[in-house]
Amino acid sequence: MTYRAPVADIAFALKHGAGFMQALADGLHPELGESDVDAVLEEAGRFATDVIAPLNRLGDQHGTLFKNGTVTMPPGWREAYRAWAEAGWNGLAAPAEWGGQGLPHAINAACNEMWNSAAMAFGLGPMLTMSAIEALAEHGSEPLKAAYLPKLVSGEWMGTMVLTEPQAGSDVGALRTKAEPTGDGSYRLTGQKSFITYGEHDLTDNIIHFVLARLPDAPPGNRGISLFLVPKFLLNADGTPGARNDVRAASIEHKLGIHASPTCTMLFGDRDGAVGYLVGEENRGLACMFTMMNQARLGVGLQGVAIAERATQQALAYARERRQGRAAAAREEGPSPIIAHPDVRRMLLTMRGLTVAARSICFATAVAIDRSELLPDEASRKVAHERASLLTPVAKAFSTDIGIEVASLGIQVHGGMGFIEETGAAQHLRDARIAAIYEGTNGIQAIDLATRKLPQSSGATVHAYLGELRDTVSGVITANDPAFGATGARLAEAVESLERATHWMLGELDSRPQSVLASATPYLRLFAHAAGGCMLADAALAAMRTGDGTADADGRIALARFFANHIAVLASGLERTVVEGAASVTEGDAALA
Amino acid sequence: MTYRAPVADIAFALKHGAGFMQALADGLHPELGESDVDAVLEEAGRFATDVIAPLNRLGDQHGTLFKNGTVTMPPGWREAYRAWAEAGWNGLAAPAEWGGQGLPHAINAACNEMWNSAAMAFGLGPMLTMSAIEALAEHGSEPLKAAYLPKLVSGEWMGTMVLTEPQAGSDVGALRTKAEPTGDGSYRLTGQKSFITYGEHDLTDNIIHFVLARLPDAPPGNRGISLFLVPKFLLNADGTPGARNDVRAASIEHKLGIHASPTCTMLFGDRDGAVGYLVGEENRGLACMFTMMNQARLGVGLQGVAIAERATQQALAYARERRQGRAAAAREEGPSPIIAHPDVRRMLLTMRGLTVAARSICFATAVAIDRSELLPDEASRKVAHERASLLTPVAKAFSTDIGIEVASLGIQVHGGMGFIEETGAAQHLRDARIAAIYEGTNGIQAIDLATRKLPQSSGATVHAYLGELRDTVSGVITANDPAFGATGARLAEAVESLERATHWMLGELDSRPQSVLASATPYLRLFAHAAGGCMLADAALAAMRTGDGTADADGRIALARFFANHIAVLASGLERTVVEGAASVTEGDAALA
Repeated sequence: MTYRAPVADIAFALKHGAGFMQALADGLHPELGESDVDAVLEEAGRFATDVIAPLNRLGDQHGTLFKNGTVTMPPGWREAYRAWAEAGWNGLAAPAEWGGQGLPHAINAACNEMWNSAAMAFGLGPMLTMSAIEALAEHGSEPLKAAYLPKLVSGEWMGTMVLTEPQAGSDVGALRTKAEPTGDGSYRLTGQKSFITYGEHDLTDNIIHFVLARLPDAPPGNRGISLFLVPKFLLNADGTPGARNDVRAASIEHKLGIHASPTCTMLFGDRDGAVGYLVGEENRGLACMFTMMNQARLGVGLQGVAIAERATQQALAYARERRQGRAAAAREEGPSPIIAHPDVRRMLLTMRGLTVAARSICFATAVAIDRSELLPDEASRKVAHERASLLTPVAKAFSTDIGIEVASLGIQVHGGMGFIEETGAAQHLRDARIAAIYEGTNGIQAIDLATRKLPQSSGATVHAYLGELRDTVSGVITANDPAFGATGARLAEAVESLERATHWMLGELDSRPQSVLASATPYLRLFAHAAGGCMLADAALAAMRTGDGTADADGRIALARFFANHIAVLASGLERTVVEGAASVTEGDAALA
Repeated sequence: MTYRAPVADIAFALKHGAGFMQALADGLHPELGESDVDAVLEEAGRFATDVIAPLNRLGDQHGTLFKNGTVTMPPGWREAYRAWAEAGWNGLAAPAEWGGQGLPHAINAACNEMWNSAAMAFGLGPMLTMSAIEALAEHGSEPLKAAYLPKLVSGEWMGTMVLTEPQAGSDVGALRTKAEPTGDGSYRLTGQKSFITYGEHDLTDNIIHFVLARLPDAPPGNRGISLFLVPKFLLNADGTPGARNDVRAASIEHKLGIHASPTCTMLFGDRDGAVGYLVGEENRGLACMFTMMNQARLGVGLQGVAIAERATQQALAYARERRQGRAAAAREEGPSPIIAHPDVRRMLLTMRGLTVAARSICFATAVAIDRSELLPDEASRKVAHERASLLTPVAKAFSTDIGIEVASLGIQVHGGMGFIEETGAAQHLRDARIAAIYEGTNGIQAIDLATRKLPQSSGATVHAYLGELRDTVSGVITANDPAFGATGARLAEAVESLERATHWMLGELDSRPQSVLASATPYLRLFAHAAGGCMLADAALAAMRTGDGTADADGRIALARFFANHIAVLASGLERTVVEGAASVTEGDAALA
């Protein structure tokens, strides 16, 4: 079965769980009404379902073809990409002054989920282009922006993020690619880069590489990195692509998944140096990179959600159709659809619960980014920025971890059929696996959360968030609806566990940083279990408030309850691991001898 | 990097954690000394490392070739298989009267782990043959045994398990393949079977299919199933393979993993009926099947351990070699090996802890099987048989679940390199994924544990086991070694959680079976966390008792401590899910609408 964009679910998660209605009520998007939002999502859903989703299987089977330095995309991909760009989707959240539609990041996030559900290998290229647009718009010089932004925003050209080198992966500061000033304002780059997504392809007439490199006199490490814009084709005086620049793909990788996304080894300057232009200031490339990265991290989190959504849809459809064994509770004779068997239902509820929780966290991050840009006063913008910064590593790591878990459960629901490639369930697991690695491994996300995000404003940022989670718990308890079962009690415990664990993390940060590093991943998971559980409950409360039947209050309550009983309930154990388990890691050498 | 059989670790787990030394002390294997066990394991380790392991990658890349009904195995596989069989490994635990070596199941289990670590697609065929040998030896008529067992035991022919049909997967009772008596004592079979592992190949000159089918007058469902032996080539009067029987492979599957294991759709009797011979009694095929199945379930559990071990070895080697970032605790300048980073170490400890725990559970199951056959009095044999029955679903489901988890973590440790197929880490995840599905999905294992194994002897079986776990906890507390940290406390809580959850499961079984079905999977996981944690602690205590440095007491204590703090600690949450979470599943329809 193929993918059908769950537009109503996405719209509800955006408006209620993630707080976009509040942003509308706060007047942050005066040009938008609720019906505009619905219309955009509806149209995106149609495009994702009708045009992109059919490419997914074919892209997986066909892969990309590398020959003489060129990459040929799978059949139909170029046409679909061009139709997608022409419809304006690439510039949805880009500034209007560069040809974008200037819509909120939150709406773009919702659309990004759909592009990536339809085909993750398709969604990945534009995601990087959007990140590059952010960086160039924020840090680029006016002439550079004028020359490149309109084509990047329209999607006529695509952008890449060129960071990794064989010896510089997670530690980007170890990179060696050199950039030498030529005196005419440009630079000549030489070096080899690896794992460059969409480094070469035939979707667009030019490819704009955003490359981290080191100036001759640069200090070592992260403080000596600069960002350069390196076009595949240099521009003619009229702005059209002209001479070929000295940059080329040397090979592509044979990967577990996202076969239709070319992952290239790129050679810069193996003749006379690749012409590049500085973006931002010299030696301040890391700041520019983080502009790209933060956007991309949310984007990758959305890929986790996207794969989880697609895997859940497919497993649900199979479980409703496939008959096997008679369920004990079945009324009809003969074999029951397997969704009637409690353990299959448990798997499906796990899949859906994790998916919706991760979606809510990602969308809430996007809403916070909008607020950080649009709120009227600087202090509020800072608060929103820190909220977005707090949630970004959770959005990235939790969503991509559960993307893998949900895709794996999807295979399990299919039984033996799940292991057969023709079924399509296996592709989701293969595709999902990379998202926990790229744009900063999930371990690095956890460390970012623990060591940089928790201490923001001396802990005030995380404590304000914990306060909101407590409010949700109170709301559930006050609602006093028996359908919630023990949801309130379990979420209250989860939030308390998170509070104590947060207190511990903040307390240890200066005195025992090794312990904080050892506990970072279970802490992030605990954070996501508490936050995700509360956001599901919040959505259920919002649905109850609508008072009509359209918001599926029953379904949302049932999902929140399942999540509380089966997932959030692990919080107490995770808390214990966080506050007591670090020594067993840091002193665990003997067990790995 | 390739696989190196961890012979010392395996021998220790077998002798101590799993209780094989006790079996020796009890005089169950009078012909064996400890040094004999070591010698067999050493030799198996050498064969697995030197001969089989090099086939793994090649088998994955090459796969099997299907053409005109024949299957060609990857280059080198036939030679390796024949050398393996000639060395006597296939008949290691088979009865001496049929040419086997009659060694304990426990030793065979240890060897099976090594064959499957070396190449899971290789180990799978013999595993099924060994299961078929069990069934034929236990249920076959004397002439049938005389004609087939010697060649199956020697490995000159291989056996298959032919159960599944497109409409009969988990519900084997829905099968339709027909067997009609011919009057000469044989039967003619007609029907189509799917997902038949090693259904066709060129490793051996004959293939002996063990086929479930239905007699013309058979009652419906499970009680109308009979088991038949259907050779690919009928035997001449002198016992050599003669005329081709009417059975053939129609196609092979394109699978996510184990590419070198041919998975066939088999057609029986599409000309004039496949000649088959009844094994056991008419309509009693299910009992024969379970003889095969129980053996195979332990074998599949060992596959989970095997993949986990190989993935852990590879990740450890990479983490020691790959340098990236300077660890905070590093003494030397420059980038540290990533094993020095706490979060990487946490992943590696998780991998090793889960692997060793699963291995211990599997080996303990095998030891219980030996006891169930060899103990002098019937009552003791029954107790041992019920212990083996209790542990088998845990061994199968937990080990294969963690096989997937560990293989996935192994990719994560490799970072971007893990996603590249050349690295080899991805193959482990692809291979591991099937083990949670075949030989009874892990959901079915959990249901088997909850509904058939817990009630054995009115709960006495599980309570006796819980008593042993409590003894281990007391041992840890009594040892009073500070290196154990909170191990005793965490394990005590885990065992208490398991006791309460067990009480709840037994109490609900008659009154609310749906709740028990809904809670079965979290219950099994809780069981494994408590049991696995205790077995690691038991091994640590045993190592301390040896008093010399060879048993690596420090490493075993450190691993037990990590497992208690990071894995067993989830027990309280799992308990809560078991006893409170069922309603959110059984009443969760609205969330899946």
